[in-house]
Amino acid sequence: MKINASGRRSFLKQGAALAGLAVGGVRSASGAPVSQAQLSVELRRRRAYGERSPFETATRGDTSIPESHTPLHEQMGIITPSALHYVVSHSYDPPDIDPREHRLLIHGLVDRPLIFTLDELKRLPSVSRIHFIECAGNTSPSDTKPLLQTVQNTHGWTSCSVWTGVSLSLLLKEAGLQKEGTWIVAEGSDAGKLTKSIPIEKALDDVIVAYGQNGEAVRPENGYPLRLVVPGFEGLSNVKWLRRIKVVDEPYHARSESTGYSVLRPAFAGKALWFDFELGPKSVITRPAGGANGITALPGPGFYEIAGLAWSGGGAIRKVEVSTDAGGTWTEAQLQEPVLRKAHTRFVFPWTWNGREAVLQSRCTDERGDVQPSLAEIAEMWGVTPDFFQTSTTRIFHFNPIYPWKVTSDGHIESALFA
Amino acid sequence: MKINASGRRSFLKQGAALAGLAVGGVRSASGAPVSQAQLSVELRRRRAYGERSPFETATRGDTSIPESHTPLHEQMGIITPSALHYVVSHSYDPPDIDPREHRLLIHGLVDRPLIFTLDELKRLPSVSRIHFIECAGNTSPSDTKPLLQTVQNTHGWTSCSVWTGVSLSLLLKEAGLQKEGTWIVAEGSDAGKLTKSIPIEKALDDVIVAYGQNGEAVRPENGYPLRLVVPGFEGLSNVKWLRRIKVVDEPYHARSESTGYSVLRPAFAGKALWFDFELGPKSVITRPAGGANGITALPGPGFYEIAGLAWSGGGAIRKVEVSTDAGGTWTEAQLQEPVLRKAHTRFVFPWTWNGREAVLQSRCTDERGDVQPSLAEIAEMWGVTPDFFQTSTTRIFHFNPIYPWKVTSDGHIESALFA
Repeated sequence: MKINASGRRSFLKQGAALAGLAVGGVRSASGAPVSQAQLSVELRRRRAYGERSPFETATRGDTSIPESHTPLHEQMGIITPSALHYVVSHSYDPPDIDPREHRLLIHGLVDRPLIFTLDELKRLPSVSRIHFIECAGNTSPSDTKPLLQTVQNTHGWTSCSVWTGVSLSLLLKEAGLQKEGTWIVAEGSDAGKLTKSIPIEKALDDVIVAYGQNGEAVRPENGYPLRLVVPGFEGLSNVKWLRRIKVVDEPYHARSESTGYSVLRPAFAGKALWFDFELGPKSVITRPAGGANGITALPGPGFYEIAGLAWSGGGAIRKVEVSTDAGGTWTEAQLQEPVLRKAHTRFVFPWTWNGREAVLQSRCTDERGDVQPSLAEIAEMWGVTPDFFQTSTTRIFHFNPIYPWKVTSDGHIESALFA
Repeated sequence: MKINASGRRSFLKQGAALAGLAVGGVRSASGAPVSQAQLSVELRRRRAYGERSPFETATRGDTSIPESHTPLHEQMGIITPSALHYVVSHSYDPPDIDPREHRLLIHGLVDRPLIFTLDELKRLPSVSRIHFIECAGNTSPSDTKPLLQTVQNTHGWTSCSVWTGVSLSLLLKEAGLQKEGTWIVAEGSDAGKLTKSIPIEKALDDVIVAYGQNGEAVRPENGYPLRLVVPGFEGLSNVKWLRRIKVVDEPYHARSESTGYSVLRPAFAGKALWFDFELGPKSVITRPAGGANGITALPGPGFYEIAGLAWSGGGAIRKVEVSTDAGGTWTEAQLQEPVLRKAHTRFVFPWTWNGREAVLQSRCTDERGDVQPSLAEIAEMWGVTPDFFQTSTTRIFHFNPIYPWKVTSDGHIESALFA
């Protein structure tokens, strides 16, 4: 690694200045210095519920749709900070819910309709599991035209949290599920009353009625005080501000289900694929990658760690391979623990850049043996040419191609998906 | 569960009112309604970096030492929200560090002294692991006199995060560790320049020079932009605002090491135990437990989930047993995944309270087979009676007794450690 030699030079040059390093005055959140009179109040406030450093500025804001994508280029580990969890809402305004007034109704094809308060739900047996949630429209080429080809915009509609709550299966058993009940319909409290049909097999499997996210209450934009977490299913299923679950005997084709989230595929003779819930195996290199504020650059040849995320609605990630030579050779990357089912998995791969143009990409395989497809393979499956995706003006769903980043000889990084 | 019957009653009574539930106006962080003119600005701000709901009010503040204990009674899962990570500092004021100016110096008994910028450290191979950090003084009876016997105060000096950074062993190898180097001394940038000696065996094992906490930068009170994470060792070793690591051939007995963090034990004939780094197996029931704002109460007989945390500096938790009859019988609790080495582990245990006085407690065993001791066993080990701990006015370190909570017949909960 080059870092040795330059580290030594830095030491010789800067060592004498070290004693006085880094102890500056306190600043307010806006960065302005604060007076001594304000100081104790400011410190006390910071300590009660500690905010991030004012030098840290990552937001959900570098996007065509304001404030909605997780800044994956700055992410570390597998847990997304709650403040940076992606947001896609069918009603712009998150409802402002008083948790003491909120109720969850379970009714329909059950023996005993039930209403729960938050306190009642919290008394029941709890589960805490780490799961990703991904919008089915994540990585749609229609949203990521050239200037937006940063990993925040191309892949930032996926996030991963510790979700805590009650198993939906427990609540359905308590309510006395009737055998005619083959679907549930979940409804949110948002202005648009987002509604989603989910098959009963899934509802009885691993679905969580979640009140907790990353150790505290679910954040307002992510469904406070209650959301459904439907591991591995498209984001739309994870109904936020959850207030009602009705057990029914057929899917409802609610507005949000029928007017969006399906794409006419030429190979299907003009028909759309319905009830395509589960998200396929997907991975992306998040560093080095197109970053915030446009395209970022590598400062020069030398050692870099390639790091990224992999996930699959089908279960745990078993393998991630990385190629640094435009797909010529693939080498298995190291997976960082913990590797969990339907959760983001962090992979790392050592790389020394020789300063010449390179194309970096990752490919994952999940526990079922399903492999992340190439763009060409997806096009073949759809019965189109890759050009179909590049020129599409409507959103493409369930789009999980191997995603190449081109590093140019001057260190710039850009998407090479359609190169 | 009683909840069925009462749920049904609630449904019959409240069902008709359900359609209009819970969609109120937007409020500012202070809870005051905001005008339409302020609304879009307010929503945009919330979306860029989403804050918690104004209805959520847990803080580090319910304590004898202002703003420092994690509110364990409100914790879910195993990850502590960064804003609520416990804070114990030897300098009250966290230094306000510009990360672009910050440097880490590695020197002493090495072939190549090195200085790293943050950007240089972030280019190196990274590790992300989930570890608890616990102050050695956590649960000291001297800090938790009767009125403060809430689980936040008795046990809230432990927290658990995803820590991301560089292995210290990698940095030491890069610097060319000399064979005379048997200890390291780590130094912080705080006003008091906290300094800690750590044996080289540990430094080469699993220590992380961490720049990340729970997916984003380490928070200011927890060492921004760089802290040492020394898994399983007492909190003091996890030097915050880390700026210097010197490889040496003996421990330094620095001020913070020699004037605190040791207790004279009568059985040692007036001598103190030095270099007692590793934290023993420990667990506590966090719900039901003494909670915020004094002693909390159970609303009435019926089903409750007993939930708590277990951890050990010796590795992974293998088993947690729970007793609800003052130690008469013990039953194994369920451990929630993931169960990781030197990390908080969540246990849950179903319990139906019959309305009579009950004493609830938990006992953990780690991967080495080490079992959390009772108060009587600790007293025997120290050569004292339990009264020694109850009346001690100096802080007791490494105090990890099985911790009983008494539920009185009217549902109040109080510590029964010295009952």
